[in-house]
Amino acid sequence: MPRYRILVEYDGTPFVGWQVQANGQTVAGAIASALQKLTGRTVLVHGAGRTDAGVHALAQVAHFDLDTEWDPLKLREGLNALVRPHPVAILVVDRALNDFHARYSATARHYLYRIVNRRAPLALELNRAWHVAQPLDESLMQTAAGHLLGRHDFTTFRSVECQAASPVKTLDVLNVSRRGELVEVSASARSFLHNQVRSMVGSLKLVGEGKWQPVEMKQALEARDRSACGPVAPPHGLYLLRVDYAGAK
Amino acid sequence: MPRYRILVEYDGTPFVGWQVQANGQTVAGAIASALQKLTGRTVLVHGAGRTDAGVHALAQVAHFDLDTEWDPLKLREGLNALVRPHPVAILVVDRALNDFHARYSATARHYLYRIVNRRAPLALELNRAWHVAQPLDESLMQTAAGHLLGRHDFTTFRSVECQAASPVKTLDVLNVSRRGELVEVSASARSFLHNQVRSMVGSLKLVGEGKWQPVEMKQALEARDRSACGPVAPPHGLYLLRVDYAGAK
Repeated sequence: MPRYRILVEYDGTPFVGWQVQANGQTVAGAIASALQKLTGRTVLVHGAGRTDAGVHALAQVAHFDLDTEWDPLKLREGLNALVRPHPVAILVVDRALNDFHARYSATARHYLYRIVNRRAPLALELNRAWHVAQPLDESLMQTAAGHLLGRHDFTTFRSVECQAASPVKTLDVLNVSRRGELVEVSASARSFLHNQVRSMVGSLKLVGEGKWQPVEMKQALEARDRSACGPVAPPHGLYLLRVDYAGAK
Repeated sequence: MPRYRILVEYDGTPFVGWQVQANGQTVAGAIASALQKLTGRTVLVHGAGRTDAGVHALAQVAHFDLDTEWDPLKLREGLNALVRPHPVAILVVDRALNDFHARYSATARHYLYRIVNRRAPLALELNRAWHVAQPLDESLMQTAAGHLLGRHDFTTFRSVECQAASPVKTLDVLNVSRRGELVEVSASARSFLHNQVRSMVGSLKLVGEGKWQPVEMKQALEARDRSACGPVAPPHGLYLLRVDYAGAK
């Protein structure tokens, strides 16, 4: 069966998440439903990252198998037409080797977390960024972020629902920058624990507000205790930016 | 009566426009309604630019008069609380001199028009940009834009509903640039005719697609004939960025 790889952009606002589940509309479900209309078959859609309700993606990667060969361009056009009116766009479709797996072949995942740091509430950025009214010191946040880089037991920054076999992950990038009222946190790793980025950002915010000293981030990490984490940042500021793969697709 | 000046950000999607009218929810109406709840009086809100249905603003300027003195910060907080759930944010409130008028005192208006130029439909930019699938040549668009700079009779680029006394305006900036799939058109002038920016962008798109030569923009301008204009660009790509005032507020 020919395997296809797709790049997907979506606004996570109206979805209960990426992964198909019983209790509501999902992004993978919307794509699977479009595939069913197109092919007449039930198709399983495997994503690289199981984004939560409200989390967005600029380029989620997924794969699926079809019974017959499809021209990738026609498949893309057909999917985009049938996935309406959901805010989902299939950016690219191409043929993949049969050993390609969107989730297990990934070598790196890149996320962006957007904070609008101003007194006034959000209008254009509603559901697209976290509104933090208290002034944030991004250089303190950057110092604190440095304590999380590298290979650690991230139990503190892991959802209690996380199903990963081990809490040990290697964090390659955790970078805080500001452009005007926009504070952005970039995070890259081979893989993340469930809610890890939002948990780290929620604690970084406490540092930015001056409620934690940067060194308290190190202490929280070393506690390996979920209760040492700051309040988890809301989903609507988080974007899955890109997923990397080594070698052949 | 003390006069107040406000800076307002809004997502134009759910509104029939800025200006209060009989047939639906407007941005000025949402602010006037919040002011009425706050003060118990009917307050007239005067905006710098009467943006159409679907047009956004990062910093619209408006003024209004109140019966009594208000602390500007408290007024801002009160307005932001009461204007919910509309996607409108009052960024700044300050006292203005009584001869300040948001519309008539303005010395320049700055607009941005955003085009996402790619084959795939929009997801995150839905209602925030114009989707143009045909590849656009932004350097040809820039050449064409140059023909519109300066003082001209802009009858070609004016809505038939425009109520301005004269079709002669001075266009100070019309700049086309690209960052990846995003093509942006910046436009600045003391004032614009109704639909002028969207009319110019609609014609620039024809140039970008190769349907018009850049010199045909000059010919369209010189025709001084509405029927010489390309199809008007849709409202949801347009943003009122900033309004300038000389001297005292």
